[in-house]
Amino acid sequence: MIAEILCVGSELLLGDTVNTNASYISQKLVALGINCFYQSTVGDNPARIQEQFDIAFNRADFIIVTGGLGPTEDDLTIKAIADYFDTELVFNEEVFNGIKTFFDKLNRVMPETNRKQACIPKGAVTVNNPEGTAPGIIWKIPPNTKNNAKEKIILAFPGVPNELYVIWEESIHKFLKQYSSETLFTRFLKFFGIPEAALAEKVHDLLGQHNPTVASLVANWESKLRIAAKAKTKKEAERLILQTEKEILSRVGEYFYGYDDTDLETAVGKLLLERKLTVATAESCTGGLISSRLTDVSGSSAYILQNIITYSNEAKINTIGVDREVIEKFGAVSEQTAEDMAKGVRSFSNSDIGLGITGIAGPTGGTATKPVGLVYIGINSKQHCEVHELRIPSNLSRKEIKFIASQYALNYLRLFIQRLP
Amino acid sequence: MIAEILCVGSELLLGDTVNTNASYISQKLVALGINCFYQSTVGDNPARIQEQFDIAFNRADFIIVTGGLGPTEDDLTIKAIADYFDTELVFNEEVFNGIKTFFDKLNRVMPETNRKQACIPKGAVTVNNPEGTAPGIIWKIPPNTKNNAKEKIILAFPGVPNELYVIWEESIHKFLKQYSSETLFTRFLKFFGIPEAALAEKVHDLLGQHNPTVASLVANWESKLRIAAKAKTKKEAERLILQTEKEILSRVGEYFYGYDDTDLETAVGKLLLERKLTVATAESCTGGLISSRLTDVSGSSAYILQNIITYSNEAKINTIGVDREVIEKFGAVSEQTAEDMAKGVRSFSNSDIGLGITGIAGPTGGTATKPVGLVYIGINSKQHCEVHELRIPSNLSRKEIKFIASQYALNYLRLFIQRLP
Repeated sequence: MIAEILCVGSELLLGDTVNTNASYISQKLVALGINCFYQSTVGDNPARIQEQFDIAFNRADFIIVTGGLGPTEDDLTIKAIADYFDTELVFNEEVFNGIKTFFDKLNRVMPETNRKQACIPKGAVTVNNPEGTAPGIIWKIPPNTKNNAKEKIILAFPGVPNELYVIWEESIHKFLKQYSSETLFTRFLKFFGIPEAALAEKVHDLLGQHNPTVASLVANWESKLRIAAKAKTKKEAERLILQTEKEILSRVGEYFYGYDDTDLETAVGKLLLERKLTVATAESCTGGLISSRLTDVSGSSAYILQNIITYSNEAKINTIGVDREVIEKFGAVSEQTAEDMAKGVRSFSNSDIGLGITGIAGPTGGTATKPVGLVYIGINSKQHCEVHELRIPSNLSRKEIKFIASQYALNYLRLFIQRLP
Repeated sequence: MIAEILCVGSELLLGDTVNTNASYISQKLVALGINCFYQSTVGDNPARIQEQFDIAFNRADFIIVTGGLGPTEDDLTIKAIADYFDTELVFNEEVFNGIKTFFDKLNRVMPETNRKQACIPKGAVTVNNPEGTAPGIIWKIPPNTKNNAKEKIILAFPGVPNELYVIWEESIHKFLKQYSSETLFTRFLKFFGIPEAALAEKVHDLLGQHNPTVASLVANWESKLRIAAKAKTKKEAERLILQTEKEILSRVGEYFYGYDDTDLETAVGKLLLERKLTVATAESCTGGLISSRLTDVSGSSAYILQNIITYSNEAKINTIGVDREVIEKFGAVSEQTAEDMAKGVRSFSNSDIGLGITGIAGPTGGTATKPVGLVYIGINSKQHCEVHELRIPSNLSRKEIKFIASQYALNYLRLFIQRLP
């Protein structure tokens, strides 16, 4: 079975909205082992939607359409589908009652325009949408309905991402499962501190292998490898993946920090919980980003008591006891200040570990000797102290520099905790 | 002139990468007044790339291709383009030297594979890529090269977003400008505190008008309206936009907070600078996110001295002087605690305004009376004090709840400063 994705929406064609649905659906199809060779996007225009049906049915067995299922005049997808197969729309009482109930729950009156969403092509099956008013549809079009020698299938869903996700998980996955001959199991290995090119080089031979396949990806200034195994059972896939994973980790294990959705803040949190330690941060250039990321993790109140953003020199001196002479002699952005900040915040917040970070986030404030992107990270425990210097490319934006600095800080923190006896 | 976008890359088709290039290019085409009715995505497969050329040239005058220009074996776009027009690839010495220089600057040896990127279809013009090794190409294919009655144009660029952006700004914009008969000028009006549906209802009649057009968009839990005017001159566009803008603001001006790329932290920063005020935040549930957002703004050190994340009760009590009895009587998540936090951090950080925020970010920690998503925001100056209660839907993720809480906090802060005498 070959699928094709068609996204409908003028907001996509005008560039107002980034098309996250196409990548979501693609990922899901990959996981089901269903091939998809084309994604297309058209505006809310029946003729162009139907032109894409011509093209897509010529090369695929089913089309997954998203978008244009809303209640407004612009939402034309369902009618375009029905017209394409010369089929009438039928008012569906049950769907209509569902829409009314949806508004009742929100204590709102249903606008008359929503009535349209209860009109479904004759023969199509509706799929419940718990998050919104437009139902999804699954329609198996019998052979010879429109020059189609074999059965064609069209699936149409709302373009609102949250609605699509819920419908997919609750209904579509199950429907499509019957068309998937084998299942793809994937595992992501996440790395920090090694550039993508260097990582790819280290596993170059594995990137060519077939089952499991290994692919190298970059995102958020990290590198990751995806191991994907096709197998009939999860157990068999697990075995295949583990074999390759072991081989990879034997080569680049020192940069590995976690699986799948794990991020550095989760990895740090896990370690702190395991070792029953608390951490406190004193941030200057990152302005609270590290603290915010650490507290993105549910349960972080177990290891975070109090963090501080010492943006001014006076705050560094008065609140966490950085030596005024240190700032005067070496500057607020210096190894020495970062060290003092780490030490100071550990004691100020009565925590086991202190992390201090100071740098120049830009775009202004850089000098020849201390350019934008220069960052110092101090980490301190009762027994140990270390300071790291970063030189982040100064052409990056302020937000990027803050984020990269937070990535390094969390990773150094992770390694620091791991090394504690 | 009609353009069509073709994105090439198996990572897009597998869903590993969200296609931000399509929306970027679409936005740029809209601004140039060049129509684009289709976006397509295919993998790194010459036959499918060429099939899309057939389809696209049938309905468009030029194709903008991104992706597949890298140095690896998977990068097949340039060869697919040349083959499609039965044209040979020619080694370009100048491009090759440029690639070598690029590696020299990074103090790295150029891998032999990069040589491929200097091979350009005969007749195509290369476009400098300051951010990477693959040049862009602009190729005007003369009539009758391949059943084409009129001239066809193909533009191909790297798929790495940063490279694409720079090439576009430096070279492509100028090239395409000659094909744009009229120019579209746009202005975004940004609103907070009014749901998209309510905003759209208030300006319903304007959503139907033609020049300028008005469109309603949602992003990041905010609403915005786009006013887009087609005109020969900027001045004329400005006049058209201003007229509609005035009408909009006369209806919903109370929710308006800024233009275009302005966000709430920028709006707050601008006000603080104008009024020469400083602010300090004490965060619990948002964990530093508000501080981080405030310091995302360049120049924020003028109004931020020191912020604090008082995650534990002891931190709230000991560091910023929240009354222990208040926490015991009303709880850490209460109007009274938020008020004390705001007052306390203002004095602790010696700032003009204090903001305290406490709530339940979830997914655990909620109770029947204090559910996940309950948040209190206190704002305090020497003369004024106010506390707001939020009830954010508890089914949202921890990160979403944090973000929405920070949106409200920044907006309340903005309104608070505006009201100061």
